[in-house]
Amino acid sequence: MSPRHAQKSVKDYIRTIVDFPKEGIIFRDVTTLFQDARGFRMAVDQLLSPYAGEQIDKVVGLEARGFILGGAVAHQLTVGFVPIRKKGKLPGAVLSEAYQLEYGEAVMEIHDDAIKPGERVLIVDDLLATGGTAKAAIKLCERLGAEVIGCAFVIDLPDLGGRKLLEDGGVDVFSLVSYDGA
Amino acid sequence: MSPRHAQKSVKDYIRTIVDFPKEGIIFRDVTTLFQDARGFRMAVDQLLSPYAGEQIDKVVGLEARGFILGGAVAHQLTVGFVPIRKKGKLPGAVLSEAYQLEYGEAVMEIHDDAIKPGERVLIVDDLLATGGTAKAAIKLCERLGAEVIGCAFVIDLPDLGGRKLLEDGGVDVFSLVSYDGA
Repeated sequence: MSPRHAQKSVKDYIRTIVDFPKEGIIFRDVTTLFQDARGFRMAVDQLLSPYAGEQIDKVVGLEARGFILGGAVAHQLTVGFVPIRKKGKLPGAVLSEAYQLEYGEAVMEIHDDAIKPGERVLIVDDLLATGGTAKAAIKLCERLGAEVIGCAFVIDLPDLGGRKLLEDGGVDVFSLVSYDGA
Repeated sequence: MSPRHAQKSVKDYIRTIVDFPKEGIIFRDVTTLFQDARGFRMAVDQLLSPYAGEQIDKVVGLEARGFILGGAVAHQLTVGFVPIRKKGKLPGAVLSEAYQLEYGEAVMEIHDDAIKPGERVLIVDDLLATGGTAKAAIKLCERLGAEVIGCAFVIDLPDLGGRKLLEDGGVDVFSLVSYDGA
């Protein structure tokens, strides 16, 4: 009988940093997950596991950490990747959606020819907090005629209400790890 | 004899947009490459072809479009992905490098524990123009003790001097497509 080495889980690779970006915030850092070969591969595999056998035409990723994950997920599926970016960053004709921040509002944009009507898309990002950005992303995809088959995140902070917001809107939400009380 | 369909090249997928981000600039848009399943796969495969058989421990990508490509390239290699970001975006302890912009300067950062001494890294980004960001990225990797085995780009604008700057510094540069007179 040889001893088994404990396998690290996705959560074990996530680093916690206190007081970032400002005092009182507990920041969950996925860069320590992504920089590890096994962690990164595991995150992509697990993120896609609920969608096995489903037709996915495109992966949509949210600026900026959602680009890292989304690029890998799209590559694993051999489908195209579509970025949703902050206002003014995309060079072509765009659709825009505003969403509320703690103070004020922000705008997310998508190229107006990035998704064809009827295409089935998976939206990915590293973190689901209040869900404002993800909600704007869903609207942008739907305005282009896409069918959003789900939103997949590495981390869910359910106490911030994002999961409820998206699910109440009829969208399927999946996450790999969850932190209460965030 | 059946007719052959002309295969689109990486360059065929890149869209040209005039006067972005400001008048007089010809912008090469890779989002139309990345959003196409065949184009995205082809870009990743071709980008890695010169490094076949080489040991690569980590892929380093530059914010923000370099995250899309870098995520996919790291996934294809089954190695970790390390982001280099603009000042203030990374939550952990960082190393910083300033570089010159047309007016003023900017600062790029890397987590100080993202790469171990002796690790062999490939730096990827969508575009090589003046080379300022890439040069800062190389310095950051080298300050962590990494061996930079190359810098790979989708697009090279050789007239802007980036390739010469990096090659004069002893770094191997590879790009998929090149536009003169940009």
